Amino acid sequence: MTIGILGGGQLGYMLALAGYPLGLHFRFLDPSPEAPVGRIAQRVTAEYTDEEALEKFVSGLELVTYEFENVPVRAARCMATHVPVYPPPEALEAAQDRLNEKRLFEKLGIATTSFADVNKQAELDAAVKKIGLPAVLKTRRMGYDGKGQWVLRTQDDVAAVKKDFPNAALILENFVEFQRELSILAVRGRSGETAFYPLVENHHRGGILRLSIAPAPKLNKSLQEAGERVAQKILQELNYAGVLAIEFFECNGELVANEMAPRVHNSGHWSIEGSATSQFENHLRAVLGMPLGSTATPGVSAMLNLIGETPEAAEVLAIPDAHLHLYGKSLRPGRKVGHVTLRAANLEELLKKLRMLPAFFQREEFCLPFKPACTAV
Amino acid sequence: MTIGILGGGQLGYMLALAGYPLGLHFRFLDPSPEAPVGRIAQRVTAEYTDEEALEKFVSGLELVTYEFENVPVRAARCMATHVPVYPPPEALEAAQDRLNEKRLFEKLGIATTSFADVNKQAELDAAVKKIGLPAVLKTRRMGYDGKGQWVLRTQDDVAAVKKDFPNAALILENFVEFQRELSILAVRGRSGETAFYPLVENHHRGGILRLSIAPAPKLNKSLQEAGERVAQKILQELNYAGVLAIEFFECNGELVANEMAPRVHNSGHWSIEGSATSQFENHLRAVLGMPLGSTATPGVSAMLNLIGETPEAAEVLAIPDAHLHLYGKSLRPGRKVGHVTLRAANLEELLKKLRMLPAFFQREEFCLPFKPACTAV
Repeated sequence: MTIGILGGGQLGYMLALAGYPLGLHFRFLDPSPEAPVGRIAQRVTAEYTDEEALEKFVSGLELVTYEFENVPVRAARCMATHVPVYPPPEALEAAQDRLNEKRLFEKLGIATTSFADVNKQAELDAAVKKIGLPAVLKTRRMGYDGKGQWVLRTQDDVAAVKKDFPNAALILENFVEFQRELSILAVRGRSGETAFYPLVENHHRGGILRLSIAPAPKLNKSLQEAGERVAQKILQELNYAGVLAIEFFECNGELVANEMAPRVHNSGHWSIEGSATSQFENHLRAVLGMPLGSTATPGVSAMLNLIGETPEAAEVLAIPDAHLHLYGKSLRPGRKVGHVTLRAANLEELLKKLRMLPAFFQREEFCLPFKPACTAV
Repeated sequence: MTIGILGGGQLGYMLALAGYPLGLHFRFLDPSPEAPVGRIAQRVTAEYTDEEALEKFVSGLELVTYEFENVPVRAARCMATHVPVYPPPEALEAAQDRLNEKRLFEKLGIATTSFADVNKQAELDAAVKKIGLPAVLKTRRMGYDGKGQWVLRTQDDVAAVKKDFPNAALILENFVEFQRELSILAVRGRSGETAFYPLVENHHRGGILRLSIAPAPKLNKSLQEAGERVAQKILQELNYAGVLAIEFFECNGELVANEMAPRVHNSGHWSIEGSATSQFENHLRAVLGMPLGSTATPGVSAMLNLIGETPEAAEVLAIPDAHLHLYGKSLRPGRKVGHVTLRAANLEELLKKLRMLPAFFQREEFCLPFKPACTAV
C-alpha cells in the first residue's frame, strides 16, 4: 500500500520512518530535488502546479496526504478527483489564509485575536483604528516561522510600514498580552474517532520554534479540556482526518487561538519518544482509517530545534534518555536541520537534564537556561 | 556517514529505521535480490564469497556490521582489512560454531550444558555414553530456529538418527530440565562501556521464537546480575562492540548458557517501544563509538512474532499501546514477516491486553493463552 505525500521535508521524512513498520510504502512529491526524503523513499520532483505530473504521481496510490500546508489547494483538489486526499482540501484552504482561519475561529465561537483585513495601503489606517495598537500586520498567505509579520507598536511603526508597503493581501491583528504560547496536537480518524496530545509550551526566537516542553508545565485539567474543545470543534467542522495542530496564546488562564496547521507539527516532535504513539504514526493511522493510537504521555519531554547547525552527536547522546534526530539536510542558516528530545520522569528532572546539555545548547537561541513562561495558572 | 550492513533482512531493516534519525546512511549486502531493505536503503546483491563485490561494497563506508551471524568469517576478515568491522570477526567465529561457543563458555567459567563433539556416525555412541540421555544432537553450524536438531530420548532415537546420519559436523548436548528460556541483550561500546537490557522470558513453538515477555516475569536482582555477569565476561573476552544476545535455560534459579548471537536479536524487538533506547539504536551507537543509550525499561512489554501470516492491522492497532511491525516480506510459511509489541504498566495489565488480542492470536502457535513458564524463582 503506497501513500502519496506532498512535500518532502523533515515532516515527510518522519512520517515515512513511522509508516514503514506499518508496512506502508511512500511516494513523495516536492519541487526540490534536494528534498531529504529522497534518501529513504521514492521521490518525484515536480512543481505543485504541474497537473500532468500530479496525475502521474497519484497513479497507484492508496491516498494522498501532505506535510506542507502551502500546497496549492488546486493541486489537492486535482488529486482528490483520483484518490482520497486527507486532511480534506477544505482544511488546507482554511489554514493557508489567515483571514479564512480567523473567520473559521469566529464562526465556531473560538476565542481569537481581533482582526481586520487590509487589502491595500489605504486600508491600514482604518484597520489600526478598529484594532488599536499594539497590533501585528501579517501577510494572509505563506507566512511561516515569523516571516511576513510586522509588529506595529506606535503610529511611527504604522507610518514606516506604509512607506514600504508589502505587496500582498494582509491582516491586522491586535497584539495580545500573553503569558505563554501553547499548542495542541489533535488527531481525527476517518470514522470520526478523536485523540489529543497534552498541551505543549512553546518558546520561539526570531519567530522560529526553538524549545517545546510537553506536557506544558503546570498544565491543569480545565486548560487541557479547553484546548481539546477548540480542536474538537475545528476537526468536526472540517470533517477532518489526520493530525491538526493549533497554536494558542495563554492569556490569564484562557486560550486564545492564534493559528492552525493541517498537518503534523514541529511542536509534536517530542511525541516520537514521549508518547505511546507518535504524531507521525497517528497521522498515518488517521488518514488510513485505522484505529488511533494511545496518546498516553508518561513523564515529561523537552524538544530543542536545531536551526542551521548541529551539535556534537556524542555530547547529546551521553545524556540519559536524550534522542537525536537529524533530517539529512545540508546546513544553512535558519534551516531546521534536526531536533533533540530529552525525556524525564518529571519537570524537575527534565530541568536538570536541560542543564546537562553541552555548551552548544546553553545559549539564548535555545531559550536556555529554561524559564517556565507560565506565571498564573 | 554510511554504515555497511551484511544481511538485508528484518534486523537490518530495523537497524536502518533506528539509524536514520542519527543522520546515518546505510548500504546493505545480501545475496537475495528480495531482501526487504531494498525499499528503504541502498542494497547490493552479491554472494558473501564474492571478494570483488565485497571490496567494491566497502568503498566509502565508515564501518561494517552485520545483522546475520552466518556471514562467512572470511568475508568479515576481508572487509576488516579495509574498514573497521564490528562486532569483531572473532565473535562471528565463536558464535557460528556451537563447539567453539561451548568451549568459550567453558573457558570463561560460564555454566552451560555438557557436550561432546561428533564428527562421524561412529562417534555417536561414545558421545551418548559420555553425555547420557536425553540429549540433543545439533549441527555445529548454520542451525537456527530449531533446524538441524534431533532430540534423543532413548536408544531407539539414537539408532534412528544413526540410520539417516546427518552429513555435517555435530555436537551432542545433554538435555537439561529447565523451567524457562531466558535471554539477555547486552551492548558494549568501542570504548568498553556496557549496558544491559533486563532478562526476557522467551516461548518457542516448533523451534521458532513466538512470544517474549520483557522484563521476564518475577525477575529478581540476583538473576539479572547473573545474566549480566555472563554477558560481561563474553563481551570483554571478545573485545566486543555492538549488541550481543545470549540465550539461557533457567534451571532451579540458575542460568545455563545455551547459545549466543553476535547481533541484534528477535528477543530484543520489544525494546523499540519498551525501552528508552532500542537494541537497534544501541547497536549503532556502540559500533560508532557513541555513548550508549539508556536501557531503562518502564513497564512490561510482550512481543509476538508473526510467522508466515499477518493479522488484520486494524484489530491489532485497536488495542491501546499495541505496535505493529511489518517487515515488507512476502508471506511464506515459517518466515518471520513481522511482530507485534504490547506495552503495559505491569504484568497483570499486560496479561489483560494479551487476552484482548483478536482471535488470530488466540492459538497455541502464539503460546496463548499465556502461562508464565516460571515456577520457582
